[in-house]
Amino acid sequence: MQKELNVAVIGIGLIGGSIAMRLRETEFATRIFGVDKNENNQKKALQLGLVDEIVDLETAIEKCKIILLTVPVDAIMQLAPTILDKVNEQVVIDMGSTKINILHSIENHPNRGRYIAAHPMAGTEYSGPEAAIPNLFKGKVMVYVEAFKTDEDAFDLADSVTEQLEMRSVFMTAEEHDMHTAYVSHISHITSFALALTVLEKEKSQGRIFELAGSGFESTVRLAKSSPDMWTPILKQNRENVLEVLEEHIKQLQDVYRNLKDEDYDSLHKLIKRSNKIKRIIR
Amino acid sequence: MQKELNVAVIGIGLIGGSIAMRLRETEFATRIFGVDKNENNQKKALQLGLVDEIVDLETAIEKCKIILLTVPVDAIMQLAPTILDKVNEQVVIDMGSTKINILHSIENHPNRGRYIAAHPMAGTEYSGPEAAIPNLFKGKVMVYVEAFKTDEDAFDLADSVTEQLEMRSVFMTAEEHDMHTAYVSHISHITSFALALTVLEKEKSQGRIFELAGSGFESTVRLAKSSPDMWTPILKQNRENVLEVLEEHIKQLQDVYRNLKDEDYDSLHKLIKRSNKIKRIIR
Repeated sequence: MQKELNVAVIGIGLIGGSIAMRLRETEFATRIFGVDKNENNQKKALQLGLVDEIVDLETAIEKCKIILLTVPVDAIMQLAPTILDKVNEQVVIDMGSTKINILHSIENHPNRGRYIAAHPMAGTEYSGPEAAIPNLFKGKVMVYVEAFKTDEDAFDLADSVTEQLEMRSVFMTAEEHDMHTAYVSHISHITSFALALTVLEKEKSQGRIFELAGSGFESTVRLAKSSPDMWTPILKQNRENVLEVLEEHIKQLQDVYRNLKDEDYDSLHKLIKRSNKIKRIIR
Repeated sequence: MQKELNVAVIGIGLIGGSIAMRLRETEFATRIFGVDKNENNQKKALQLGLVDEIVDLETAIEKCKIILLTVPVDAIMQLAPTILDKVNEQVVIDMGSTKINILHSIENHPNRGRYIAAHPMAGTEYSGPEAAIPNLFKGKVMVYVEAFKTDEDAFDLADSVTEQLEMRSVFMTAEEHDMHTAYVSHISHITSFALALTVLEKEKSQGRIFELAGSGFESTVRLAKSSPDMWTPILKQNRENVLEVLEEHIKQLQDVYRNLKDEDYDSLHKLIKRSNKIKRIIR
C-alpha cells in the first residue's frame, strides 16, 4: 500500500544528517530531500550521501510525507507556521531543543494536528553535515511534547521514525521539557563555555597551562566546542529557566568559594560528599 | 647486579593500586609491599593481587628501595618528613596532586635529596583498590616538581618507574604546578560538584528531572563522583590558587547570566564563539 515515503530534512547538520543516515540505512525512506540555506552544507550533504537531492523548501513540502525540522530553534520558530500553511496530510516533526515558544507560535494554527514537537536527547559537541554519525540515537530518549495535540495518524508516522532510530519515548508538557532540559543539558553547556573561557583567559599570561590538561578537564570542557549558532537561540528561547538554574549554580559555586575562603573544611567535605549522590544517577 | 627491587605502596587506592598493577605486570618490582590504614583496603588489595604483602610503615621503609606515597595530600604532608627521617638510600616518590605545601614540609630535611615530588596527570572519578586499572598512566604526563633538588641516583630510580608506566615527563616549579593544576584539574572538579548539587537540589521538587540526562550532562558531572577524602585536602592545600580561579570562573558565569538577562544575544554569541577556541586544545 505504502508506495513511497519521502522524507525532507530541513537543516542538514548533526541531527538532520544523522537521522537521514539512519533512515537510508533501514530503507525506511524512499528518497531523502535536503533543504539547507548554506551552500557548503548542501555540497557536503550530497558528497556524504546523506540526502538524494537538494531542493527548495516548497519542493520539499510538496514531495515529502515527513518533514523534519532540524535547524536552530529560532529558525524552527520562524519556519513552523509557514510550513504548516502549506501542509495537507504531511507530518511536520520539530526536533528542536526548546519547546514553549515554538509551540506557542503554532498554537492556533488550523493545521496544528499535523505538527509534532519532539526532542531527541542525543548529540555531540560537533555540528554540520560532517558531524553526522550512524547510531547517534540508538537507545536514547525521544521526548514528545504535547503529543495529544497531534492527529493520531501524524503521531503514528512520527513515532515510526523514532522506532527506526531505536529510541525510547517519553511524554511531557512544554513547561516540563524546557525546565528539565535547562537543568540537565543547557546548564552543562554554559558551564563548559565559562570554564573554557576561564582557562583560555589565563593562558594569555601562562602559556604552558594546557600542558597538564587531562581527561577530567577534557570531560568538563568538551561541550565548549558547541556551535554558537545553535546554542545562542536555545538559551534565548529558554531564557527564564536557564536564568533560574544558572543563578542556583552560581550560588552553589559561591558556597564552595565561601567554605574554602573561611577554611571551613568540614562543610566543604560535606558538600562534596553530598554531590557524590550523583552516583545514583550516572553509572 | 640489581638483585632485588622491592616497592612500597603507601595508600593502596586508584593511583597506588594502578601503579602496583603495572610494576607487577612488567616484573619491575621483585615484591610489592602495601601499607594502608584502612583494613578493608588491605583485604581488597591482597584479594585483587595488587600487593604481595600488607606491612606496617616501618617494615615497608626497611624492606623497600622505592617508597611511593599515594595517600591524600594532607597525609603526604604529615608522612613525608617522618619517612625521610628513616631513609638512607631509598627514594621516596610523592604522587600527590598539590606540591607547594608538601615540599615546604621537607625543605630543609637532611634527606631532601632522597625525595622526589611527582604528579601523574591521570585518574578517574573512582577511588579505592577496586578502582585500580591497568594502563591508567600510559601516554599521560608525569610532572616532576623541583626535580633539581633530588639526588641524581634517586631521580634516575624514580624516572625508571615513570618509564615503566609509559609516561612522558614534564618539569616545573611547585608554584607553576599548583597554579596550573588549579586551572586544568581542580576547577573542573568544583564545577562538577556544584553542578551535581544544583540538579540534585532541583530533583527534590521535580522527580523526573534526570530522565532527560544525556551524555553532555554525564560528561560535565562525572567528576562529582570523586572522593571527598581525597579532594577536600587538595582544595585545602591549593587554597589560594583555587580561590583565584574559582573567582574568575564565577565571573565568567555571571557574564553569561548578564548577557542573557539583558537579552544581549550578540554578546552571548561572541562569548560562546570565543569559548570554541578550546578546540585548539582538546581534540
